[in-house]
Amino acid sequence: MDLNSDLGEGFGIWRLGDDEALLAVITSANVACGFHAGDPSTMRRVCVAAAERGVVVGAQVSYRDLAGFGRRFIDADPRELADEVLYQIGALEACARAAGTRVAYVKPHGALYNATVHHEAQARAVVEGVRAFGELPVLGLPGSQLLEFARKAGLRPVEEAFADRGYTPEGTLVPRSQPNALITDTAAVVERARRLLDGELVAVDGTVLKTSAESLCVHGDTPGAVGHARAVREALGSVAPFA
Amino acid sequence: MDLNSDLGEGFGIWRLGDDEALLAVITSANVACGFHAGDPSTMRRVCVAAAERGVVVGAQVSYRDLAGFGRRFIDADPRELADEVLYQIGALEACARAAGTRVAYVKPHGALYNATVHHEAQARAVVEGVRAFGELPVLGLPGSQLLEFARKAGLRPVEEAFADRGYTPEGTLVPRSQPNALITDTAAVVERARRLLDGELVAVDGTVLKTSAESLCVHGDTPGAVGHARAVREALGSVAPFA
Amino acid sequence: MDLNSDLGEGFGIWRLGDDEALLAVITSANVACGFHAGDPSTMRRVCVAAAERGVVVGAQVSYRDLAGFGRRFIDADPRELADEVLYQIGALEACARAAGTRVAYVKPHGALYNATVHHEAQARAVVEGVRAFGELPVLGLPGSQLLEFARKAGLRPVEEAFADRGYTPEGTLVPRSQPNALITDTAAVVERARRLLDGELVAVDGTVLKTSAESLCVHGDTPGAVGHARAVREALGSVAPFA
Amino acid sequence: MDLNSDLGEGFGIWRLGDDEALLAVITSANVACGFHAGDPSTMRRVCVAAAERGVVVGAQVSYRDLAGFGRRFIDADPRELADEVLYQIGALEACARAAGTRVAYVKPHGALYNATVHHEAQARAVVEGVRAFGELPVLGLPGSQLLEFARKAGLRPVEEAFADRGYTPEGTLVPRSQPNALITDTAAVVERARRLLDGELVAVDGTVLKTSAESLCVHGDTPGAVGHARAVREALGSVAPFA
Repeated sequence: MDLNSDLGEGFGIWRLGDDEALLAVITSANVACGFHAGDPSTMRRVCVAAAERGVVVGAQVSYRDLAGFGRRFIDADPRELADEVLYQIGALEACARAAGTRVAYVKPHGALYNATVHHEAQARAVVEGVRAFGELPVLGLPGSQLLEFARKAGLRPVEEAFADRGYTPEGTLVPRSQPNALITDTAAVVERARRLLDGELVAVDGTVLKTSAESLCVHGDTPGAVGHARAVREALGSVAPFA
Repeated sequence: MDLNSDLGEGFGIWRLGDDEALLAVITSANVACGFHAGDPSTMRRVCVAAAERGVVVGAQVSYRDLAGFGRRFIDADPRELADEVLYQIGALEACARAAGTRVAYVKPHGALYNATVHHEAQARAVVEGVRAFGELPVLGLPGSQLLEFARKAGLRPVEEAFADRGYTPEGTLVPRSQPNALITDTAAVVERARRLLDGELVAVDGTVLKTSAESLCVHGDTPGAVGHARAVREALGSVAPFA
Repeated sequence: MDLNSDLGEGFGIWRLGDDEALLAVITSANVACGFHAGDPSTMRRVCVAAAERGVVVGAQVSYRDLAGFGRRFIDADPRELADEVLYQIGALEACARAAGTRVAYVKPHGALYNATVHHEAQARAVVEGVRAFGELPVLGLPGSQLLEFARKAGLRPVEEAFADRGYTPEGTLVPRSQPNALITDTAAVVERARRLLDGELVAVDGTVLKTSAESLCVHGDTPGAVGHARAVREALGSVAPFA
Repeated sequence: MDLNSDLGEGFGIWRLGDDEALLAVITSANVACGFHAGDPSTMRRVCVAAAERGVVVGAQVSYRDLAGFGRRFIDADPRELADEVLYQIGALEACARAAGTRVAYVKPHGALYNATVHHEAQARAVVEGVRAFGELPVLGLPGSQLLEFARKAGLRPVEEAFADRGYTPEGTLVPRSQPNALITDTAAVVERARRLLDGELVAVDGTVLKTSAESLCVHGDTPGAVGHARAVREALGSVAPFA
């Protein structure tokens, strides 16, 4: 099982999350590329730190939206969106190579992640942007248009699960506006991770869902989240990057 | 002799200069990388058009300053500046590769070009950013700190001359605030180009300067400028990219 | 009848449209406030020029989207959107007062204009932003949520018609993707203006619609558009700002 | 004596400093206006909180430089700089009025603060921007060009001292690169505040300098800084806004 998390999400003087703590836990780092967060120096520093620890670097591509942290849907022109994805991967690739590593996969951030679950034109655009760069795996939600188009385009689709999010019986995430959207109990988070090793996800109503997730997403933007990430890592025993 | 010019200097809805006309004339395109101008779609489109015409692509790196078009000195931290240079080259490289070509050289834009003539820390920073990316030639002013540090760092320094700018007897450009800063007469521009083939530059007072410029910079932001560029191309007879 | 048009839509070095030509024709200037276009110097210069010609200044508020020129829907948080509207009006008000005039109305730009026709939360947000600033009239599409919420909030709703856009029999604009979306024939544009004086709009199928539009929107981003604007002005005979 | 501090210096998702803690201590809030920090919602929220506590609102104007937090000198065109100052004050004024207060003074931020100590053209530009808005007091360093031009322009110059910075015998701040630049001992900070009430500042070599500072600047970006601010407030006994 792979453990992925979002890193390098500061900008200029501002910081967000505990990159150092997470790098000791995860196997894949989704590095912000400057469009929702991530100035060039932060990007390079995260790549250097990831390379030192053997953590794989991925491009966390986003809408161009620093003010909204990439969390707002933008009705972007698909051709422009594809080019923005290409630009972001290229910028991170330069930082990664300077750090002795490579961009090994792509994961959309925030609203773009959510949009490409259902929005065909934008999902296709992200895949086109990735393909214009090269044959990189794409990390996303099982059943998303994003992974479907990635598969069709000859890219490796990588399904991920969330350690600290509640699932509906249909296998989608419980919206953040509803109860049970977030799992705050460490024991429950750990249990989620353990079941994943058997290919199972337990929904909020107890339904057992089958999953082929290869990566588990953990967060680091609160001290509690870092604690969860550490507990998950320990529970999984052996972890390894998917890429 | 190489002919270089700045391209792709629009942003979003805004356009600047006549890229198409210039691509028919020049051998090297200094493509804006998003920091003073140049959105990802413009960058990719220019790379595609350049590749189709056999024009070499270079990264025109800049301070982060869309509002000032990169024409204002910024007292940037050298380490951050190096990382910004790396970021910009990487972003353009992705666009260039998607177009079947490569970034073949780097030329600083505007105020960064001027600053790195004398500002050692920033000149060194640009060179470090280029080296972090790879062994690319650096285009600049003869005698500049930029070319000096490039040489010391093992990068190929490429000297350029300006077809439409007046030179002092010392070989520096006449400041734009003074008379004779700009050459507006086509015949004079053409004469400048012809003498360059013999390694000579004529200063505003008639002094004949020796030069080893390998590239001649032309502009395309006015109809007159495009006319000059065409006349220069014709006068030079044979042109070829330096890179 | 009032004649309104978008002005000050450059940014930094970039220009768009012929502000000078339009100021000789229109009675109300929708001035870009920095979020989709419009740097502070452009804003102040347009305010000065408008004040000199007796043209009324309005705030053309937008999503924060320079890269997309405000033409892309952004799923902005309504409270943040209201604050962004307030910020933009305030910034323009300072420029207007420095020029001896005032912001006399508000008109949303581009995608925000279109969104607030139907999107209740965003329409309400724009109205809240305006009210937080003061009791300004709001310019918009007849039947829009924007004008409806403006009316309920005690603001003066001002309906506008478009001189060069086709209308459906239901009174909405023909989408740009369809034929007859744009009227390119000057005589037809002039006829549209004349009928408006009688409170009538002729749809693309000949249906005669009743309208209480107080303002007619003209464009200036092409030479043809400026010609239309001049012809409309002449056809209307007497024009006067609504505000 | 007035106590001033920088507030609202987050942007979007990012936060900096403890605004709430400082608002309980200070009498004047230098509110970021969106150019180095400060999105519209943060600006409005800080204005509301300041108004509730009777803290006076000032405009902390800056170069346009989110990436550098306004801490890098930019060789801005003075006319454009004046317009940027005008724009920022206007934007904050709208937020302040919506909160039932007003912008009562202007203080340049970071590199602009430092530049306008000696840079005549930029000092003049800031003053022109303020005057274009209205007759507001200007807060700055004693002896600075900024305060000199403010005085000449008929604006009230307000001198400030720093509670936690070392002074040279000449009355300038010890550069941050040197020892004694920062005072970290609470007792020393408190002593500095007490002596100020008598119009005296003690330099790092013990020289006693005369001062007519009306305002004392405290910081809140570290827990220690907030502690110092509280101790200074207590030591001063009675505090009141200068404006």
